[in-house]
Amino acid sequence: MTGDDLVAALRSEAAARYHDKHPFHRAMHEGALTRAQLQAWVANRFYYQSRIPIKDALIVAKSEDPAFRRAWLRRIGDHDGALEGEGGLSQWLALAEGVGLARDEVRSFTAVLPRAKQACDRYVSFVREGSLVAAVASSLTELFAPDLMAVRITSWERHYPWVDREALGYFRGRVTRARRDGDEALGFVLARATDDATGEACLAAFRTKCEILWTLLDAVAERFGIGAA
Amino acid sequence: MTGDDLVAALRSEAAARYHDKHPFHRAMHEGALTRAQLQAWVANRFYYQSRIPIKDALIVAKSEDPAFRRAWLRRIGDHDGALEGEGGLSQWLALAEGVGLARDEVRSFTAVLPRAKQACDRYVSFVREGSLVAAVASSLTELFAPDLMAVRITSWERHYPWVDREALGYFRGRVTRARRDGDEALGFVLARATDDATGEACLAAFRTKCEILWTLLDAVAERFGIGAA
Repeated sequence: MTGDDLVAALRSEAAARYHDKHPFHRAMHEGALTRAQLQAWVANRFYYQSRIPIKDALIVAKSEDPAFRRAWLRRIGDHDGALEGEGGLSQWLALAEGVGLARDEVRSFTAVLPRAKQACDRYVSFVREGSLVAAVASSLTELFAPDLMAVRITSWERHYPWVDREALGYFRGRVTRARRDGDEALGFVLARATDDATGEACLAAFRTKCEILWTLLDAVAERFGIGAA
Repeated sequence: MTGDDLVAALRSEAAARYHDKHPFHRAMHEGALTRAQLQAWVANRFYYQSRIPIKDALIVAKSEDPAFRRAWLRRIGDHDGALEGEGGLSQWLALAEGVGLARDEVRSFTAVLPRAKQACDRYVSFVREGSLVAAVASSLTELFAPDLMAVRITSWERHYPWVDREALGYFRGRVTRARRDGDEALGFVLARATDDATGEACLAAFRTKCEILWTLLDAVAERFGIGAA
């Protein structure tokens, strides 16, 4: 498996299984979700967001290379912020307020569905137990996030005008950050996945991650439905 | 157990078991070590140093609090540096050169004794498997580091004049950093160790950490002796 083969395989997986293909996600971007469904997604997805710095710290702990750790540490800072009130988690809580949820309620995870929680916890376990290269490969969904974020901003602004535009800051920030993070992670994976076994392990990790994102949407759709009845 | 009781118990443990009481460490500060013994300590202790960012990332991954993670993340940066060639690990490699060792050899851990390696790996396992508060409590040896570093600088400058003074930068930096880190960790532990069971667990974690530092010195002394024969 060459690097080009691996990239092609990742693209093919993403085309079939990345969460933008999920009926709930399609409905979100088509403007078909109800306010309650959008709120449920924001509240449940916050649990996923809250796992990101934790899984990233586990990735840092797997590396013997100060340069790698230094670069990956930045991701934790991106989500936790350099100061109180900054960073992706705060931005997501602003999004929660923007869709009409109470910040503290979202932060307390009370609305998180068991199946959504399990999916996110599975991601953390996967990273904790797996190899460094597989853990990094599981982050490669970032490669497909920038385009999706750009579409999401336009879609939300058009279809959900009741959401404060200012509240979409997280999505805006991710367009650039996800591109940088995805490219960096891909470079790392391609440099190491030079044998078939490692390439397959990376592809499997990517598939697992796609499943996790998919299950999160399954959980919300199962409980709240998709669109007005 | 009150906070004062816990602090008193930590001080009492440190007075008996902190590694400055180890015969090898006493000999180091008395100027009694041979060049080979000092080199062996620097090379073996580098393996310990290299575990610090890893165990700190594991501590970050245990916390649900962005403010805690943000503060603790700084420790990883202190050791890995903000840029290539900066940070505590680079400073330790400069120290290794200062005592006449080859940087790349030290970095490759080839001179690390199995028993020293085991002790350091035990520290990482302890942090990985334990609770957050116990993991933080195991770092409280930092409380006793600033005074020791100050003595070490004076002692090395006097007794080992063949070591370049510039190479002692790591010890100099730790005087301030260890004080800040130790105080921060103590505040965290005292706020949580409000029941006897947690207090005892923190004390046990501190004792384990003292044992680990002690064993590292045992390993070096066992192989290289203490002072000229």
